[in-house]
This record gives sequence, C-alpha cells and structure tokens, in this order.
Amino acid sequence: MNYESLFPTNVKVALMNDPPGAWMPQLPESCIRLSAGYPAPELVPSEQVRSAVNRLIHQERDLPLHYLGSPRVDFLRAQLQERLKHRGIDIREHELLVTSGGCQAIDLIAKVLLDDACVVAVEAPTYMEALEIFRNYTHQIVSVPMDEWGLQTDVLETVLTKRTDAGLPMPRFLYTIPSFHNPTGTTLPLERRLKLLKLAEAFDFLIVEDDAYGELSFANAPVPLKAMDRSGRVVYVGSLSKVVAPGLRVGWIAGPQTLVHACSWFKKDLDHPFAQATMAAYLQDVDFTKRVEALRVAYRKRRDTMMRALDTYMPAFASWHVPEGGFFVWLHIPEIDTTKLLYKALDRGVSFVPGQYFFVNPADGRHFLRLSFSYVDEEQMVKGVQTLGQLLT
Amino acid sequence: MNYESLFPTNVKVALMNDPPGAWMPQLPESCIRLSAGYPAPELVPSEQVRSAVNRLIHQERDLPLHYLGSPRVDFLRAQLQERLKHRGIDIREHELLVTSGGCQAIDLIAKVLLDDACVVAVEAPTYMEALEIFRNYTHQIVSVPMDEWGLQTDVLETVLTKRTDAGLPMPRFLYTIPSFHNPTGTTLPLERRLKLLKLAEAFDFLIVEDDAYGELSFANAPVPLKAMDRSGRVVYVGSLSKVVAPGLRVGWIAGPQTLVHACSWFKKDLDHPFAQATMAAYLQDVDFTKRVEALRVAYRKRRDTMMRALDTYMPAFASWHVPEGGFFVWLHIPEIDTTKLLYKALDRGVSFVPGQYFFVNPADGRHFLRLSFSYVDEEQMVKGVQTLGQLLT
Repeated sequence: MNYESLFPTNVKVALMNDPPGAWMPQLPESCIRLSAGYPAPELVPSEQVRSAVNRLIHQERDLPLHYLGSPRVDFLRAQLQERLKHRGIDIREHELLVTSGGCQAIDLIAKVLLDDACVVAVEAPTYMEALEIFRNYTHQIVSVPMDEWGLQTDVLETVLTKRTDAGLPMPRFLYTIPSFHNPTGTTLPLERRLKLLKLAEAFDFLIVEDDAYGELSFANAPVPLKAMDRSGRVVYVGSLSKVVAPGLRVGWIAGPQTLVHACSWFKKDLDHPFAQATMAAYLQDVDFTKRVEALRVAYRKRRDTMMRALDTYMPAFASWHVPEGGFFVWLHIPEIDTTKLLYKALDRGVSFVPGQYFFVNPADGRHFLRLSFSYVDEEQMVKGVQTLGQLLT
Repeated sequence: MNYESLFPTNVKVALMNDPPGAWMPQLPESCIRLSAGYPAPELVPSEQVRSAVNRLIHQERDLPLHYLGSPRVDFLRAQLQERLKHRGIDIREHELLVTSGGCQAIDLIAKVLLDDACVVAVEAPTYMEALEIFRNYTHQIVSVPMDEWGLQTDVLETVLTKRTDAGLPMPRFLYTIPSFHNPTGTTLPLERRLKLLKLAEAFDFLIVEDDAYGELSFANAPVPLKAMDRSGRVVYVGSLSKVVAPGLRVGWIAGPQTLVHACSWFKKDLDHPFAQATMAAYLQDVDFTKRVEALRVAYRKRRDTMMRALDTYMPAFASWHVPEGGFFVWLHIPEIDTTKLLYKALDRGVSFVPGQYFFVNPADGRHFLRLSFSYVDEEQMVKGVQTLGQLLT
C-alpha cells in the first residue's frame, strides 16, 4: 500500500521538512560531545530524584501512578508559579499549563497560533527544534538577524515597517530566546527588550519568550520580557530541563488564559503524573534558590574553562563572544564550511553543531558553529577544543 | 487583547468541541467512582516501580534523567515487541513508536491521516477521548452501530455500499476497540474480525485497532486484528496503562513504517526518558506473563462481584451483557435520562459515565451508562450499585 498518498496535504508538506540525511549524523559512543546541550552529569540530581521517588511512593502508594491523583501535581504548579515570581512574573492558576518540556510548549503555541496563511518571525540563528516545529505549520518564516547583543530590534523595526508599506501581513508572533540564547549565548540588553515590547504593540504581534536558560546567569540576572509585559503580548515558555533534569520532561507555558486553554485542549498526551509528582517531591526537598546559585557557579567555571581553551587553541581568524550565562558559545570561523568540518572532527572524536541547523536559510550558518560547555567534563572539553583548533590550523 | 481572533480557523473550529459544561462534572472526593476507568489501586505495582527506580538510578545514575541516554529505553522497545509477539503480532523496529499512552497514539494517527476533507468511521458507542480527538481534525464522523457482539460488520458493509453508490468518499480509517470494548465491554467474534478485514480491503480503508484491554481476558484471549492483517491495513494502538500503570504514560503505535515515521515526526513532546526507563527497569524484573494471569484472575473476580450486584439490585427493566474481559459493563436503562440520573447519583455519593459522552450524537446515549468494575474496592462497588438500583426503583 502507498500510505503517503493517504496523508493530508499539510502533513505531506510538513514531512518534506524531514529529508533523509538532513540532520546531525549519529555520534560515536566515545566522542567528546561539544554538541550536547545537556546539563552536566554531576549537576543532575539523580540521588535526590531517587529519594524523592521513594518518599513519594512511601507516602502516596499508587496515587502518582494513576491518570490523576497525586496532590503533588498541584504542588508542582504552585512551585512553578513561585519560581516565576522570583523572575518577576505574577500569573494566576489558569494562566499556566505544564507541558512535556519546552518543545511541547512551543509546538502547542505554534499549533494554536499558526497555519500556512500566517507569518512567524524568528531570530537568525534560532533554536533548531523550534525552527523544525514552525516549519510544520507554515512556510512563511521571517528571520531577523542577531548581533553580539542578541536580536537587532532596529532591523526588526525596519523589516516590519517595510512589510507594512508593502501591505504584507505582520508576524503572528516573534519567537525569541532573549537570555543566554541558544545557539549564540547572547543576552538582549534592557533597552532592546523595551524596544521589542513597544514594537509588538505598534505592529500588533505576540512575543513567544523562551526562557529555558534564564536562571543560569553568571553575573546579572536579566529581567524576562514577560515581567515587563503590560499589554498581554508575551507568552512565556519555561523549562526545568536545564536546572533540574531534561528526562523528567517538565516545561510550561505562562500566558493569557484563552491561549493557555487552547493549548491544553490540544495536549493529547494528557499529563505525566509520575514524572510531575516526582519533580514536585524533589522540589519539596530542595532549597531551589541555593541550587540555582550552585548551578551558576558550576557553569560559570565551565564557561571560563571553555574560554581559556578557545583563547589557547583557536586560530586568530576564529571569533566569539563571551556568554554571560547558559550553556553555549557561538564561533564564527570565516572561510570554513562547518558542516564539512564536523565530519573531520568526528573522525578525531569531537562533535559540535554546525551553524546550518539554526537558520531558515542553512547557508547563512555555513561559517558558524555552536559549542556547548555544559555537558562534557572540563578536561575533555579542553581536549576537544584543542582538537578543533588543530583541525583549523 | 482578543486572543481568539488570532486562532486559525481549524483551531477555532476544534475549540468549539469544548463548550463550557459539556464534560463530566467534578466528582466529590468521597464519591464511589464507578465512573473511573483506572486499574485497581492494589494492582498498580507501586512498590515494584519504587524498587525499579532505585535499581535504575543506582546502575545508571544521571543517564535516565537526560534527553536520551538510558539503554533501557531500547530494552523497553524490545519488550513491547516481545509482548506483541505473544499476541501474534510480529513487527520490526521501525514499525514501532512509543507514545505517551494510547491517547497520544490516537492523536498522532489522526494528525497524519485526517483533515476536514476526510471521513473517519467509529463505533457507536466509542471511547470518548478518541471521539474528542477525531473532532479536532474533521467533522465528518460516521458512526456504525454495535450490538452485544461488538461492531455490526454487516451494517458497516451496508453503510459503505450506500456511500459508494452515492459517490461519497470512504472513511480514511475505522477506529475500533475489538476486544473488551470501552464503554460496552463487548468483544468482536472471529468471523466479524475476518469480515472487517475483508471490508477494509474491498472498500479501501485502514483500521485503527485500539487494544488497550486486549490482554485482560477472563476466558479466551481474542486474536487482535493486527495479527490477522495480511494487507497492511491495520494500525495497532497498545498501552501499558491498564496492565501496569497509566501514570507512567507508556503506549505505542505498531504499524507500517511510513505511517510510524510520520507520527514520530509530529510527536513534539520528545520522549520521556525517565518514565520509559522506569517502565523498562520494572519490566526487567517482573514475570509479565504471570502478572497478566494474576490481573485476569483479579479483574474476573471484580467482574463477578459487579454482575452479582447488578443481578441483585438493578430493576428488571435495566439490561446488560456480561463482559468477558476489560474494565467495563454497559447498562441499558430504557426511559431514564442517564445524564440527569448522574446528578442524583452524585448526591448519593456514586458516579458513573452517562452514555451521551460516547456517541457522535449524544442523544443516542441517553438511556445508557458505563460502570467500571476495575477501580473501587468490591464492598464499595456493591454499595454503589445498590444505591443506583435504589435510585431507579
């Protein structure tokens, strides 16, 4: 049978975004994974999660293993609201939807706001999974360039003005990672944040703020857009993947009730009671403010090691900016095709993510690559950077 | 801001399926939940899950808490393939997709096979969540009546012949729960199964077989449609929710590779490494065939208790058929509006699911209701049925 012929047009179109060989090659087991945007193994609280599960099942028996039941799931929601308050964001109960990580949050938002008649705006570069998700809903993706301070809001204004003059529709929303950006590591300064909020009002679009790395600041903690949102235009996506553990899949949407309700209607994986109750039990037992402080110190140390290694081993024609938080540093390597470089690096046992994956137009990323300082241990990290340096000289 | 105005048409239409007050009322805490399609608390292996997590984290530390990592996730897939073999279904690796329970499986299949130009066929009555999901993709839902032996395949043939004669499109697929049906408890006999497979070929449609209860037989284990499928027309939906625990959210799709790949492309909650690794670790330590046998004995005993209670307390005008497996019994109560009855029952501390939720046309279910014998303890079950009987006499 020809099953493809049964797919509706929108599905056929979306599946064209998944051509064979388009994604990262399989990495060998022993590889130094400078590609991996994972938290550091030693910073994943596996022992605490283990004891949280023991406590949970001792106290609640089968409850967290049913569809609903564990009262701790409500506690999780309360905890997330509490964490948001620390970031200056005050939301009510119906403005919060717990999701399976940030990815599902982005997918649900795209689902309820986009179809192929809609325009979406993204940063160039942007988070690759988000790009992949948006492409499933629309082919009209507008890229707005970044510089070392993140999204160029003046360029955004020019783009939107030109679109207005040409009678083209405004983007339904702009997807942005204003703090410790993936992949660039940049952070949007306050004046650009305020400018962006003004533009959203002036040109009538929403902002989807992905704040997955927002708490992992090495110096000053940036204020989320959502905390400064006076017109209800910011939909906030949060995640505990970077600050606790991605494998528990706890993310969320904080936004207007109407939108949150619509997202929840389409969330047909239902809830994940065991994972959510486990996360809640873990959070009950940890001083989270202290934990975040410890994470900041640990990742700052890793960032410093990465920076020293880059200074030592990278050729003079490579350049980068020092990230003030998060997991990543973004390298510009003129003249070098980073996708080809990856295959050479893999032969030498090192991985990174070539720039092409982060752009609507892959060619725009040809001379860039993303290194992660979050996952591999520092000795390996230095060795990996040294190898990359050797390949470039 | 008027956020509704931003939703694309398909989203607006889908949200109309969620009118205020359309769903089951909130149940009081102390209620005897004859409505709950949950496994029995004492049959949820919470202690074994607890020790599985201890073993898992002791052996793998942070691995199951990352995005990928635990080799046990592969073991889970192998285990699911093994379980399918026991049911006579032999599939290869790329024909299997692990999902967040059966609901996500149904949603993904609907996503890749339906749009508003497509017809889908369902049993009348059918699983309420499935109906809710299909309504999000198309308004063209054809209901085919059931009798005490499940789907009336001769009526299906008539319906399809008439549609052919009238030049109407065939359903893209028929959604069926052939074994221990939700809500009716019926099981499709072998000759109807063979007939259904023939009809799928003759009229060129797919069959989505939901086998969530298939292993929970009280006498003879029915052979899944998928095990008899010679033309690749059956897409199988499985779940460990009823036989292990719903809160771990492990379900799956077994079907043609092209279709499974398409489903996986749209599964943007990514995988659930911790829950899946926990399930795998649990399965490694349990004699599952023995477990399923024990579940059959336990639920058969509960079924018997329910039947005795119905015989004792129900008025003569109520009727039902004895289910040969699963969780449910379906009552026909002529003249009584079961939605109104529910409010009276809730006042007396008993819940059930009124028939209206299981039909495309809610009025068709007015004189039916679903009772579950899976969840509440047997003493409470009898008390609950007695209360319902009193309300009816």
